[in-house]
Amino acid sequence: MKTLDWNTLFGKGAGRIQASTIRELLKLTQRPGVISFAGGLPAPELFPKEEAARKAAEILKEKGEVALQYGPTEGYGPLRTWVAEWIGVKPEEVLITTGSQQALDLLGKVFLDEGSPVLLEAPSYMGAIQAFRAYGPRFLTVPAGEEGPDLEALEATLKRERPRFLYLIPSFQNPSGGLMPLRARKRLLEMVMAQGLVVVEDDAYRELYFGESRLPSLFELAREVGYPGVIYLSSFSKILSPGLRVAFAVAHPEAITKLTQAKQGSDLHTPVLNQMLVHELVQEGFPERLSKIRATYRAKAGTMLEALDQEMPKGVRYTRPQGGMFVWMELPQGLSAEALFRQAIAQDVAFVPGGPFFAGGGGENTLRLSYATMGPEGIVEGVRRLAKALKRLLALA
Amino acid sequence: MKTLDWNTLFGKGAGRIQASTIRELLKLTQRPGVISFAGGLPAPELFPKEEAARKAAEILKEKGEVALQYGPTEGYGPLRTWVAEWIGVKPEEVLITTGSQQALDLLGKVFLDEGSPVLLEAPSYMGAIQAFRAYGPRFLTVPAGEEGPDLEALEATLKRERPRFLYLIPSFQNPSGGLMPLRARKRLLEMVMAQGLVVVEDDAYRELYFGESRLPSLFELAREVGYPGVIYLSSFSKILSPGLRVAFAVAHPEAITKLTQAKQGSDLHTPVLNQMLVHELVQEGFPERLSKIRATYRAKAGTMLEALDQEMPKGVRYTRPQGGMFVWMELPQGLSAEALFRQAIAQDVAFVPGGPFFAGGGGENTLRLSYATMGPEGIVEGVRRLAKALKRLLALA
Repeated sequence: MKTLDWNTLFGKGAGRIQASTIRELLKLTQRPGVISFAGGLPAPELFPKEEAARKAAEILKEKGEVALQYGPTEGYGPLRTWVAEWIGVKPEEVLITTGSQQALDLLGKVFLDEGSPVLLEAPSYMGAIQAFRAYGPRFLTVPAGEEGPDLEALEATLKRERPRFLYLIPSFQNPSGGLMPLRARKRLLEMVMAQGLVVVEDDAYRELYFGESRLPSLFELAREVGYPGVIYLSSFSKILSPGLRVAFAVAHPEAITKLTQAKQGSDLHTPVLNQMLVHELVQEGFPERLSKIRATYRAKAGTMLEALDQEMPKGVRYTRPQGGMFVWMELPQGLSAEALFRQAIAQDVAFVPGGPFFAGGGGENTLRLSYATMGPEGIVEGVRRLAKALKRLLALA
Repeated sequence: MKTLDWNTLFGKGAGRIQASTIRELLKLTQRPGVISFAGGLPAPELFPKEEAARKAAEILKEKGEVALQYGPTEGYGPLRTWVAEWIGVKPEEVLITTGSQQALDLLGKVFLDEGSPVLLEAPSYMGAIQAFRAYGPRFLTVPAGEEGPDLEALEATLKRERPRFLYLIPSFQNPSGGLMPLRARKRLLEMVMAQGLVVVEDDAYRELYFGESRLPSLFELAREVGYPGVIYLSSFSKILSPGLRVAFAVAHPEAITKLTQAKQGSDLHTPVLNQMLVHELVQEGFPERLSKIRATYRAKAGTMLEALDQEMPKGVRYTRPQGGMFVWMELPQGLSAEALFRQAIAQDVAFVPGGPFFAGGGGENTLRLSYATMGPEGIVEGVRRLAKALKRLLALA
């Protein structure tokens, strides 16, 4: 067999696309017996298996010529209309995407050139960093905590820089779990409006609030004051099924048109069957389904926090999430979350070390725990194992 | 409402992404009563509706936790293994993609920089031109006809240029219907091997041959002589369902690894339910299904050719396809296929004008007719209408 040096054949883009070391680490977590707090995998017991089986069969039998044929790039008409009504916009302001990950890629394709500044929270969603990085932008970061991005730091950055867009997750941030208060949302909006900047608001966790209701999104607040610069992303991954890969972007029609043209070249359209299935699944009992999902994650979060309160040694800080799927943890300065990961894997428990969530580096002593996937016994036992791993690490330090 | 000038907010990439004028034209073809030879839409009567309904219900009931959950980027294991066996490679040489369109996008992302030379046939698949164009390459083209690309022209081009890859559709080319003979395949392979070039072989129509068997692919021929530089694309779109968006790329593991990393940022993974459904649908009666598909398209092609032979005025040339979905037509020089399109739409018949299939311009007097979608009466009536439109155009000329 002749050999080719593939690295010399690839373009510059290939150099920017790298295996995340984390995803390599996470392969270790698939070993049987490992309790994983790592992936953001929705609770499988919440999947509408029976209902999806019945609806999928009906769709394929009765409308198979539609479900199995090529479809429009913008999305399956009735789903697009349903999403538009749900979000309170017009159908031409909606694009159905193949998961929110695709929306992030399309935003990179449309907005980012090599060297373009783009502003993210630190930490921010790893998949967004990965999607944008392929287009070679320059990352600007502002620290983010339990109340979202540091607005003083943001203001200072926006005095010096004009990012192509700000990528923010204001509600139940991944990975930090942070929730921007209403006043912070309003202040942020004033800043971006003053400069006519684009905000990409990722609201994947919009329905997973543990309180009485959710805060208005940046998108909603911007619409109230007539500002068209917020591009809103959300998904059916956390409320129906991630495996179906059905999500949506909502934006000004001019932005939707360009994103749609970009999507045409990327995958022609999101699978039609999946869109029809989602459309059927939201027709009946959807509010009840959302209540049940909220109650489930609220209970799981409670279980994890109680176990952490019992088991964690002093000096370890962690958030008390008000929604979403994650607890964010800070080890005492000087301790490495990757070192803890190796101890944890030896104890058959896994999590995601926080470093890769920081586009500008840092965060070596942070980590993300997901309570979404495991049942209560698994959560309690996993936290026990984690505490044991941490004590070993402290003994070594 | 404040306004934003979106065009100043987008990056350079957005300028390269344009609505294809063709797709705009094609919207006209969705009017009721129009007989459309335009889209490459597979025959809906061939869709496995009942079987898919039964299998989808089984999968969701029995393995819903897998079908509805996040899955691996590389693809659903059993499907990847099945494809590997079908094509005669190892599973690590296979990547499942969200339609072949996604594979084209990933190839652009990994191989093409702004200004990179990339070589295509003229004409070539419009979706490939669109996918690659987003990355800003420089298109090199060689004329292609019923026997594939002009190898003299190719040789001359390769003396001057080193394209990042050659994108070729050797069997039943879209749009020309061309079929590269075996000796041409071998000669082409010698040329690319001599320079260590990468070939992307798009074999979407691999099973749609009307003769006794198919020719060996460039990929197979290259493997026989130990050359790893051919990246092979194919799809379940033409043999099961395009709406499911399940396709695959086969290549050297180093290329697959990089494409997989790129896919991670693009959509995380292809929907799991769709991959499981395809895997189930190929388990039983697949060879019989392929025979039936071949027989159906062979008959449809025959019907269209017979009608064209009867109806078309002298001076109009068209191919006699040996497989695939398309007849490629050349009007007498000086006649415009777009002008014919306007006459045709007035007669309630549609096709795709050939111009946009030429990455380097030209082809204004060419057009593509698909016989795949319509039944025999529709084909005959559509050709009659087309002849009427053509006579009107000739009368005007």
